[in-house]
Parts: sequence; C-alpha cells; structure tokens
Amino acid sequence: MRKIFLNLKNVKYPIYIGKEIFDRFPQICKRHGIKSHLAVITDKIVADLYLDEFLRLMTKNGFYPEPIIVNAGESSKSLSVVSKIYTNLIEMKLRRDESVVAFGGGVIGDLAGFISATYLRGVNLIHIPTTLLAQIDSSIGGKVGINHKLGKNLIGAFYHPVFIFTDVAFLKTLPKRELICGLGEVVKYGVIMDKEIFKTVEAELEKILNFDLKIIEPLVFKSIQIKTSIVEKDEREKKLRMILNFGHTIGHGIEAGLNYKRLKHGEAVMFGIVGESFIAFERGILKKDDFEKIKKLVFKVGVNFPKKILAKDVVLKHIGYDKKIYSERLNMYLPVKIGKMKFFNDVGFGEIERAIEFLFDQN
Amino acid sequence: MRKIFLNLKNVKYPIYIGKEIFDRFPQICKRHGIKSHLAVITDKIVADLYLDEFLRLMTKNGFYPEPIIVNAGESSKSLSVVSKIYTNLIEMKLRRDESVVAFGGGVIGDLAGFISATYLRGVNLIHIPTTLLAQIDSSIGGKVGINHKLGKNLIGAFYHPVFIFTDVAFLKTLPKRELICGLGEVVKYGVIMDKEIFKTVEAELEKILNFDLKIIEPLVFKSIQIKTSIVEKDEREKKLRMILNFGHTIGHGIEAGLNYKRLKHGEAVMFGIVGESFIAFERGILKKDDFEKIKKLVFKVGVNFPKKILAKDVVLKHIGYDKKIYSERLNMYLPVKIGKMKFFNDVGFGEIERAIEFLFDQN
Repeated sequence: MRKIFLNLKNVKYPIYIGKEIFDRFPQICKRHGIKSHLAVITDKIVADLYLDEFLRLMTKNGFYPEPIIVNAGESSKSLSVVSKIYTNLIEMKLRRDESVVAFGGGVIGDLAGFISATYLRGVNLIHIPTTLLAQIDSSIGGKVGINHKLGKNLIGAFYHPVFIFTDVAFLKTLPKRELICGLGEVVKYGVIMDKEIFKTVEAELEKILNFDLKIIEPLVFKSIQIKTSIVEKDEREKKLRMILNFGHTIGHGIEAGLNYKRLKHGEAVMFGIVGESFIAFERGILKKDDFEKIKKLVFKVGVNFPKKILAKDVVLKHIGYDKKIYSERLNMYLPVKIGKMKFFNDVGFGEIERAIEFLFDQN
Repeated sequence: MRKIFLNLKNVKYPIYIGKEIFDRFPQICKRHGIKSHLAVITDKIVADLYLDEFLRLMTKNGFYPEPIIVNAGESSKSLSVVSKIYTNLIEMKLRRDESVVAFGGGVIGDLAGFISATYLRGVNLIHIPTTLLAQIDSSIGGKVGINHKLGKNLIGAFYHPVFIFTDVAFLKTLPKRELICGLGEVVKYGVIMDKEIFKTVEAELEKILNFDLKIIEPLVFKSIQIKTSIVEKDEREKKLRMILNFGHTIGHGIEAGLNYKRLKHGEAVMFGIVGESFIAFERGILKKDDFEKIKKLVFKVGVNFPKKILAKDVVLKHIGYDKKIYSERLNMYLPVKIGKMKFFNDVGFGEIERAIEFLFDQN
C-alpha cells in the first residue's frame, strides 16, 4: 500500500492506494479518529458485490455502519434523492462528528460528497472509489455535486474527504465499458503530462482491457499523482486546472449532443481528445506523428464514434450554447507533443467545427 | 459609516455599518469587484418596502440586478424553495463569478447563503441584513442553511460573504416584535461579554422600543464587535463559540415545545437567558443582584411567558431528546456576573428542570 498526499492551502489528506487492501480499511479509519457510527452510501451494483464484505469487516472491527443504497446511475444525482438521504441520516441520528463513506463510482462520490458537505453543515467524508474513473479523477479535488433538470453538476460545493481509500482490486468486477471510460482519462493524463503513461497504455492495451491489475495499479498510481499535482497547483479551477479539461470541450458537446445517452462521459472524452488534438495538429503545433498516435490509440480501444445517431450541428450547439460565441475565442490547453500542453486563448469556433467534422469523417 | 473586519483563518471580509448609508451600496460593490449582473434574493415584506429603491439604485449605477422574491417566514427555508431558486438562477444564467445578494432577515440570509454556497459550487454572496437579529447575529459567522421536516437547520454549510452591508435605517420599518427578538440577542451579548451594553439597554429600553436609531446604532455596532470577536476566536462552533449559545438550551426547548409557533426565536431565547441565569444563581456563582437585574430587564421588554399553552415536560423532552441524557452532564457557559461567563461541563438535567419550573412560576 502506498500513500499520496493532497496538499492544499487549507487542508491536507492522504490517498491510500494498493491492491487487495480492503481489510486494512478499518484500521485506517481508526488512525484518522473516525467514530464508530457511520453511514455508508452506495449503489445497488456495488452493494450486491461488496456491501456484505464491508459491513462484516467494519462490524468485526467495532464499527457500526448503516448503509444507504441508491439506484446505480446518474439519475441518483438529484435533489429528490438528496432529500431522502437527509431523512435517512437524521433518522439514524448521524452526528456532526460522525462520518459518511462514499462507496462507489463517480456518481456516489459526487452525491455522498454533496450530502457530507451539507448535512449538519458538514460531516466527515471518506471516499472509497470503486471505478477506474472515480479512483483517478472524480474522487480527487473536492468537487462534489448533483444535477439539475436544466444541466449537470450545477449544484454542488468544494468539499474534501478525511482520506481516500483506493483499492484497485475493486476494478476486477468493473464492466469493461466502465474500464474504458477510466482509460480515457488515463490517456488524457498521458497526453497532457506524462508520455510514459501514454506509452504504457499503447504497449499494454490488450492486458489492460483484460483487467490485468499488475499493469493497471501503477497506471492508477501515476494518474493520481498527476491529478493531485494539478489540483494542488490550482485548487479552484483557475487557469492551470483547465488543463484537466483537455478533451472535455468537444467531449461534452458529443455527450450532450446524444442527450447523455449511448456514450458514457469517458467515451465521449476520448473522442474529445482526438478532436482537440486535431485542432493542435491543424495549427501546426502538434506533429503529425504524435497526432496519429493519439488517434490510433483512441480508436484501438474499440468504441465506435456514434456518427449515425449524432448530428454535427447539435454537437456544435452544445459547445457554443448560443450564436454569440461563434465570434468569440475560447480558452483551451492544446497538446504540443504527447506529454506537454500549451495554453491558448484564441481557439476559434471554426477550428472546433472542423475538428468535429474530422471525427465524423473517421471510418 | 464604520467598518469591522471579520478575520478568519482562511477568509477576511468587512462589515460596513451605518445609518442611512443605502445609497453607498453600489460603490462598495464596485470596490469589491462585484460584477454587474447579480441576483437579489428577498422576501415579500422586504420587497414591498425596499426592492424598488434597491433596483433603481443599482440600475442607476450600472448594475443589472434580477430579483427573486420568496414568501416571508421560516417556511421558505426548505429544499423545495431552494430547488425553485436554483431554476431561477440557471434561467437568468447567473455565472460562477457573479453574485447573490441576500436582502432581508435571518431566513433570507440563511436561504440565500445556502444557495450561494451550492449553486455552481459557490458564487459570491453579499449580505444586506434588514432585521436587528440578522444585523447583529445571523448574518455574521458563515452559518447558512435550511430546515428539514424533521428539524431546523439540519441542512447547511459554512459559507462566508464577500462583505456584509448593515444599514440600521432598515430597522425603522421593523415590526416591534422583530425588534424585541433582536433585543434579546443584544441583552445576551451584554450578559456574556459587555456590561455596558446591558446598562444601556436597561437605561434606554423605552427609547429602543420606540425605534430610536441614535441609541440603536451604537448597540448594533458593539454587538457586531462582540459577535465577530467570538467567531474569530472559534470559527467552527467549538468550545468558545458555545458562549453564544447562552440562553439557547432552554430557549430552544421552549421554542420547540411550542412547535415553533407563538414565540419567536429571540423571544424564547430571552426566557432562556433568565432560565440559564437562574441555574448560575442557584449554584451560587451569580449574585442575586445581577440575577434580578437580568430577570427584570427581560420581563420589562414585555413578552409574556406562554405558561398556559406550554407543558413543562414537553420543554424538557425537547432539551433532553431522550431519557439517556437525564443522567448525563451538559456543557454550558453560565454567567458569573453581568458581562462575564464561565464554562461548566457538569450542568445536570435537574438544574435545567428547576430553571424551567422557575420560569413557569413567574407571572
């Protein structure tokens, strides 16, 4: 088991990372002074797989965990689910000095994080991320929140956990599609910061897609290092943190253009990575060789670009929001080579349009 | 116009205080870099009295304020009202770098504060408290929140404004009952920290109850000084901040015992002040003379203790919650003289019971 600290201006906490370390979780709780009574928020899928084990483990070690189980999926990130969970917590008399464990993927982390930030003006939060995406991305950085019927993640807060507990063994039961979503973020980290990560994914793609944890664990560790280093340098999504949005401008347009169906976030981001790399390539700042590598790797992962069910102008609309922006210039980090980004404040809408056209022109 | 800074570990901001200073508000906004587009959350009563003036003033100075008006009263501190306001803010496209003005009393401050803390993970908040209670107490210290059907203020956050703008001229239109509620807190500040405040209220009670702003303004100023000094020393409701709960243990029991009807919070707290002073008197740590002064002042304000509609055991139940606590000892600050408190960790339930009986014995 290794440890990475997230060291922010007002708060510092560890991320514990390892393979098959679940049985050490109760001791770590004790080390952090976590009180015995705690709520564990999870979804039906994770509950079926791991909740019994979690409860047995915790109870055996003197804890008194009470589970709250929500439906799996984005629909649980709603104010009505939040409202029900508040009721559960009040009924179980969870106190201000007790804790909420977020046990699941990104949805659970966001939801339970928002609950922890707002129940009794804030209770202790512990993340146990169980998906690749949650382990290397969404659990780190303090963003918590829920959706509004008019848009995603519009309601939320910045709220940090006491610690994050990341056991890659949970990934064994992950559906392949979820693995691929996380892999999109790994590729992103490679392109923006670390060409070694990129090379590893290139070389070991087959093993990764076969859930080889010996390959995946160091990738998770390095990815967490990258995410924490960026969050530390720029806690509140200012300029530097925008580097993490690589692939997300176009990715978000694709995702929203499909009404958040068919493609998952991580899958859409992968196409966004190709699209935004295309902008860099077209500008002449990214060499053809590097651009081809990125494109090849993304398409090799095996997700098909949903050209038949997606309309170009809808994607554009979702990126541009309204017509005014067409003449505006966007702020964006673009790759100048694999592992290195540069900030630009003059990305035109026409460039984005051509990048999307490029995606539509692939096989 | 005077200024008091609230100087916390991670944040520092000014409270502007004066009489008839409303027309200086736009300039202060500009000084703090507030963007022109902003939402102002207020209630129907404040809107009727002051919203036109606010909008005219702001518009004249180049701002673009959009009002959101809720019903007056505690019922607006609900998740359903919060949900509607989120929709309003999204529809007016309020951005992360824009602001929410909380224009009203404690309910509006709590509600708009919670909204500001959670909309887009936090937008700028400006408090314009319009009641005495909000000016000297609830707007200061960062506590924001809403109610749950199972209890008050169970949902919330710590979230600080960019600045607080306190014009005592708003108090001219305050209903007398609301003035008395605020006065309860002023008396509390006197007992816990500043015998001069206590003496002023004793000497000038009639003028205060006649809304004499020349007397009220310095009381507001001193009260804010006391509240800020305590919050600064103990931001997160640890031991010292408990001093502010003086009168609230018993006061809350009375309030809850009436199901939050009939008596307002500030009125209940006044009886709580007498009750908790009685405990100190009975212990022999508070002299009879000081205790009598406190009792006399509170009863002179003219609120009747609702003995006919209140049941002793219901009050006790609301303080004790369940039987377990009867044998427990409570932490409580008690007055040792007017202007000075001492911390005790051994207040027994029997003492509280006798204090409540004492209140019931007053005519």
